[in-house]
Amino acid sequence: MATPQGTPSAATGQGWGPPYLLYIGNAPDHLAAKTARGLAHWRPQWCIGQFRGSECRTTIGIPDMTFEQAVAAGANTLIVGVANAGGVMDEETVAHVVQALRAGLNVASGLHQRLTSHPRIVETAKACGRTLFDAREPPATPVGKGLPRPGRRLLTVGTDCSVGKMYATLAIEKELRARGVAADFRATGQTGIFIAGRGIPLDAVIADFISGGVEWLAPGRDDGGWDLIEGQGSLFHPSYAGVSLGLLHGAKPDALVLCHEPGRAHMRGLPHYPVPELARCLEKNLDAARLTSPNVVAVGVAINGSNLPPGDAARVRAAIEAELGLPCQDPVADGVGRIVDRLLQCLPN
Amino acid sequence: MATPQGTPSAATGQGWGPPYLLYIGNAPDHLAAKTARGLAHWRPQWCIGQFRGSECRTTIGIPDMTFEQAVAAGANTLIVGVANAGGVMDEETVAHVVQALRAGLNVASGLHQRLTSHPRIVETAKACGRTLFDAREPPATPVGKGLPRPGRRLLTVGTDCSVGKMYATLAIEKELRARGVAADFRATGQTGIFIAGRGIPLDAVIADFISGGVEWLAPGRDDGGWDLIEGQGSLFHPSYAGVSLGLLHGAKPDALVLCHEPGRAHMRGLPHYPVPELARCLEKNLDAARLTSPNVVAVGVAINGSNLPPGDAARVRAAIEAELGLPCQDPVADGVGRIVDRLLQCLPN
Repeated sequence: MATPQGTPSAATGQGWGPPYLLYIGNAPDHLAAKTARGLAHWRPQWCIGQFRGSECRTTIGIPDMTFEQAVAAGANTLIVGVANAGGVMDEETVAHVVQALRAGLNVASGLHQRLTSHPRIVETAKACGRTLFDAREPPATPVGKGLPRPGRRLLTVGTDCSVGKMYATLAIEKELRARGVAADFRATGQTGIFIAGRGIPLDAVIADFISGGVEWLAPGRDDGGWDLIEGQGSLFHPSYAGVSLGLLHGAKPDALVLCHEPGRAHMRGLPHYPVPELARCLEKNLDAARLTSPNVVAVGVAINGSNLPPGDAARVRAAIEAELGLPCQDPVADGVGRIVDRLLQCLPN
Repeated sequence: MATPQGTPSAATGQGWGPPYLLYIGNAPDHLAAKTARGLAHWRPQWCIGQFRGSECRTTIGIPDMTFEQAVAAGANTLIVGVANAGGVMDEETVAHVVQALRAGLNVASGLHQRLTSHPRIVETAKACGRTLFDAREPPATPVGKGLPRPGRRLLTVGTDCSVGKMYATLAIEKELRARGVAADFRATGQTGIFIAGRGIPLDAVIADFISGGVEWLAPGRDDGGWDLIEGQGSLFHPSYAGVSLGLLHGAKPDALVLCHEPGRAHMRGLPHYPVPELARCLEKNLDAARLTSPNVVAVGVAINGSNLPPGDAARVRAAIEAELGLPCQDPVADGVGRIVDRLLQCLPN
């Protein structure tokens, strides 16, 4: 099988790689800066500064730096991960990328629109001897087959986009490893790819190859360990549900963890679509997963409680536990110990 | 919105266009030659011959011709539509395309692998002054929004791939037009694009843009007419279900027609997956469609009875009608008059 074009070795230091300056641009809200935030959370030692535009409305909480300051502080690569609908760079972003290259930074991007498709960026990189890396350039994979394969797999699914699926998956990896269980995070999005050093940018894959891409990402394993597959989108999001369904089928998961942000008013980007009820959402995901994995079980609910009023989180978690009969935790605030307890209880070695 | 790159005007005669020589290659069975068969069925006046390889196991039933004979008979374009898993050209196909170009034919292809990505083909076309056209080069579209839009839309869905969704959709267009109802076939696959002269190659679209591509293909209309959207894949096919789900959401259909090939032993290409029961398949499709189109209804079942033993078709149709309470017809053998009756009864002007 072909070596994936989209699998950087983020820690190599050759060409692009850490230390990173995180490009926040004019991110209008916290969610728009989720790539930078995720990197700073899971790889703080790699992230030495952030670059924000004049209209930026969020912060990662690390030092603001110009491109020149970042280079002086030892930064190697600018990470461009600000998400717009459609993943397109605006003119200001292009101008900033060009400035960064001239200042001496390599540039890595997770946007749909490739750095390497933009003549001015390509010319500048060439003239300055800098490296461009597009994390959303997908590898060539076969189509999905849904065949039996060894190993155990967990997939995170969500009520919506951007509800904490990657955080939950990484937290489960950390918890399983702490317990001495072999476990590997399998990245399906730009941020995860920067964190894991490899992965498949699933939303950039050609539609016929969604499930095949996931089969490639998490092939059979026979060491008794777990592949922990990062979910994407939601079966209930009209823009992206196709990706979520192909991911369910390709993952062939033994276990699902449902991810949710309590209090969200509507589906992300779509004020006319309500967030689904948890029980209904979970049942639809289990039902869809059963096509390739008839014995799939749910083992927990991970919530992102960061926007809840203080004191509400415990009540919300208890209500979800009572409703679904599953452990419910906030991976950032509480960890995922009880979810992993349930996982290993349902699916022991 | 950008002019789609994937919308040929098949009847222009400029560059590529009819008359066609249909490339069957070494198609191992009837289904593998479905692009050529579909073109010959729906546009017989454009198809003057077929080219078959030495190991071909099917025929379209039109005269066999060499490339030179086809040119002498007036052919303008070789249509390459033989489907392999993954849509890749083998070496013999490449050699044939090169021969055809040298003989004086333009070449149009519906395969995933682009003619324009193959240096030898590109060089030969350039040297011979011939046109290459890749029907699977998708247009740039926005992501799906699931917003209300005017007009009425019907989508064909299937128990499996290659069960007659395109034929059913085209037959419904013909029947509605014969009754004086404005109706337009909206192509989502290679064959449909060659037949309609425009469309979107949905399986070649980037995963995040599946539903958005369908919204682009069938935007709002206010003439009281119907958009008849060609379905793809099946919610029950582990390789391609993501495409089918995004298509359901983007189509926002008022009506579904379920397509099925009775007697098929298993899902196409996957001997370990059974074909779903009709009632279950239809209910899952209606349920999934309701996310963007809450009032969607089923108006009929279209079967491909071409492989049934003589005399069985009527019995099979009657059994399906009794089970589902919907008109069931074979579009090729019986037309779709009763399905269209039901459509216009459920959704009058």
